[in-house]
Amino acid sequence: MQGEHGAAIAGLPTYADVARAAERLAGAAHRTPVLTSRTADAMTGAKLFFKAENLQRAGAFKFRGAYNAISALPEAARTRGVITFSSGNHAQAIALASRLLGAPATIIMPEDAPAAKIAGTRGYGAEVVLYDRYGQDREALGRAIAEPRGLTLIPPFNHPDVIAGQGTLAQELIETAGPLDVLVVCLGGGGMLAGCALAAAELSPGCRVIGVEPETGNDGQRSFRDGRIVTIPVPRTIADGAQSTALGALTFGIIRERVSDIVTVTDAQLAETMRFFASRMKIVVEPTGCLAAAAVLHGQVDVRDKRVGVVISGGNVDLATFARLTAGTA
Amino acid sequence: MQGEHGAAIAGLPTYADVARAAERLAGAAHRTPVLTSRTADAMTGAKLFFKAENLQRAGAFKFRGAYNAISALPEAARTRGVITFSSGNHAQAIALASRLLGAPATIIMPEDAPAAKIAGTRGYGAEVVLYDRYGQDREALGRAIAEPRGLTLIPPFNHPDVIAGQGTLAQELIETAGPLDVLVVCLGGGGMLAGCALAAAELSPGCRVIGVEPETGNDGQRSFRDGRIVTIPVPRTIADGAQSTALGALTFGIIRERVSDIVTVTDAQLAETMRFFASRMKIVVEPTGCLAAAAVLHGQVDVRDKRVGVVISGGNVDLATFARLTAGTA
Repeated sequence: MQGEHGAAIAGLPTYADVARAAERLAGAAHRTPVLTSRTADAMTGAKLFFKAENLQRAGAFKFRGAYNAISALPEAARTRGVITFSSGNHAQAIALASRLLGAPATIIMPEDAPAAKIAGTRGYGAEVVLYDRYGQDREALGRAIAEPRGLTLIPPFNHPDVIAGQGTLAQELIETAGPLDVLVVCLGGGGMLAGCALAAAELSPGCRVIGVEPETGNDGQRSFRDGRIVTIPVPRTIADGAQSTALGALTFGIIRERVSDIVTVTDAQLAETMRFFASRMKIVVEPTGCLAAAAVLHGQVDVRDKRVGVVISGGNVDLATFARLTAGTA
Repeated sequence: MQGEHGAAIAGLPTYADVARAAERLAGAAHRTPVLTSRTADAMTGAKLFFKAENLQRAGAFKFRGAYNAISALPEAARTRGVITFSSGNHAQAIALASRLLGAPATIIMPEDAPAAKIAGTRGYGAEVVLYDRYGQDREALGRAIAEPRGLTLIPPFNHPDVIAGQGTLAQELIETAGPLDVLVVCLGGGGMLAGCALAAAELSPGCRVIGVEPETGNDGQRSFRDGRIVTIPVPRTIADGAQSTALGALTFGIIRERVSDIVTVTDAQLAETMRFFASRMKIVVEPTGCLAAAAVLHGQVDVRDKRVGVVISGGNVDLATFARLTAGTA
């Protein structure tokens, strides 16, 4: 999977895939605003451009990859339908994208997932299948449903069209803000980081791309440094969208080639960043969506005198949790 | 003050003043995003365009009028400085605009104003003078400070350059969204409603312009219907930015000519709208900023099958109040 720096690597998506995804997403995804804050600039000595994917449809960047992947299916496969495993933003993104594209969607969720997320996913018209995460084999259940119906699995990050779809947000950011010195991206399974790295390498050559993980969930950082995919137990963190336990082969293949560094932040820094976004920038950001900004605001990334893109990945947090975390009692 | 419909009225600002304000504000004010929501569209049967002035500098549309008014001062007057009375968004807007334009600012605030607002205003570098609102004559105090120093009073709404500055938000909204059938605007003292009505009449002829007040603070609605300025006691409402007791002569002069109707909403509808903005659109909006949207979402304005501009006026609400109101225990 390894290739020369800057060259396309066999089997991995390239910038051409991002460009094709941007065409598919035009008019379907929101072109989310790029926000600036003199306060944040003064705190960091940088010129910061925040890409507000919390204002994306279904509340997170995930809609981009989901819509792109389902759009790319042959007509017959789309008519049969898609299936995924997720209790988070990917579930709602697949549900909404499927509805828009006329593909039946089945989402397998743990039966103890938050009622609001189950209801939200059903609200977009998806069929939700609940399973007992302590007693049932999720993969076996998925196969038992998918095979007789010929459903296509759309995984949350390790898929070329998902990666390419997420990369469109960096393309829009660079189109709006101009060339960047640094692009800082939230990191869970790596779909967004990989896609953004492809776009940045093409559209803002020389831009450093930095991934940010929760301190307790630093599998990406360890994988990046060790040069192999490191798997960790499910991490405890308020960043519930970054509780993945390992990068995928595709996302790791791109990240090891295109990303400059991976840093981490604490849950306390995430909560403080949520408060900053709410009180100063007037936006609701979920804990995972604060990863990149927390690293920038807390000095984990060298940004002084630089033009810096900062991805806000999503805003799906229930209001009680939001109130608790922004009250500073996390 | 009355004139023929559509004609300029002596002494009142016109669209030309809005256009000049837009030139002064270019690069100083944020061009705030226009947000859309398929959910809100589905709820109302309309195509809604939300102008997000909660994302404006200092957190509210007030920056536009303040910056325009101070910019318009002769150099000598600007160097001597400006003064205003306000405990709200106008205070912070004047403080920030003054700092940017090199004008010393004095803000007279009641000594029982929220500590956060006093600190915020001082944080922008303004001199804050506190007074006892039960025992001291505010106007006399203002004159005693202003006269020896030659300070210029910038009132919160009843001023041609303030009205013209606020109108720039409607100009931007129509430039971005295209022609509108209806424009719905929050109403306190009427600076924003008057300025937006000037812009809409010029840039989207035939657009109905609707003002929205709190039910308990319906002086504007009564004035509009009676054809004279009606003064009411300070109303009890969570919309603290719309607790003005009367329109001004200038704002009323424009509103009676250019506005189609004024409607009201309840505090419960405002709180519900705050929850909608936070949970569905991922933005923090103060109660006053919800006025226009609350009227649209609760059927107070006929919007079905129409293209509708909805102004979100500000986002300055402390996080504890935000948590309380969005928890539904208002």
